[in-house]
Amino acid sequence: MFGIDTMGLMDEVKFDRQGLIPAIAQDAESNDILMVAWMNRDSLELTLKTQKATYWSRSRNKLWLKGEESGNFQEVKNIYIDCDADVILMKVNQRGGAACHTGHRTCFFREVLDGGSTLQEQGKKLFDPATVYKKKSIGD
Amino acid sequence: MFGIDTMGLMDEVKFDRQGLIPAIAQDAESNDILMVAWMNRDSLELTLKTQKATYWSRSRNKLWLKGEESGNFQEVKNIYIDCDADVILMKVNQRGGAACHTGHRTCFFREVLDGGSTLQEQGKKLFDPATVYKKKSIGD
Repeated sequence: MFGIDTMGLMDEVKFDRQGLIPAIAQDAESNDILMVAWMNRDSLELTLKTQKATYWSRSRNKLWLKGEESGNFQEVKNIYIDCDADVILMKVNQRGGAACHTGHRTCFFREVLDGGSTLQEQGKKLFDPATVYKKKSIGD
Repeated sequence: MFGIDTMGLMDEVKFDRQGLIPAIAQDAESNDILMVAWMNRDSLELTLKTQKATYWSRSRNKLWLKGEESGNFQEVKNIYIDCDADVILMKVNQRGGAACHTGHRTCFFREVLDGGSTLQEQGKKLFDPATVYKKKSIGD
């Protein structure tokens, strides 16, 4: 059928040598990019099934349901795959308003200025990480 | 100084074991995500210097000034780095309107539907790749 690929995502998707693929979470309303993390096959399947973004934490070496500790789940509205099938894009509703473990709305809160010599913080923290997370090692 | 990191991008940025970092190109006006490709240190430095997105092509194993063949340069307006300094985000003006080598505006032109069993093409091609590119192997 025109424009329809019935092979399905799990046949098409290309994981890297570590079995991972980068996944972008984009705010479904503002289109702001919230974060980029990694998925393995299990986390991608769980994301499809539960409609909650589930990553693979490389630092903790385990499945990572985003929001499992903070309550800041990402409700997945749409999923896209790029032309060479090696990046996932999700449009999400970010519960709690902040995606970053630092308390910022987005992980991309530092702008590169002056040709790269300055990194300037943008925006305010929406929560205090110390009150939201019990342990230090969070995320990727 | 508060909120200012004067260490600079090139000191802070973390490349992976292959010396690469993923870089997202986002449309500066619509906030649509156009593509994700990879940069090494040289391509990041060139991007900062020239304000034109320059990647590292893993398939061609060489520096890749986006638009060098098609004319569809990406004029870089803003650059951000994420909290753990391992993803680059660029807000760009996409010359020619289309970022993808397929002729689509964005590389993320396939939506994942029906729990992953269907990939549905979205949007129209803005150019015919055969008339824009002389050779087959383009991009990453």
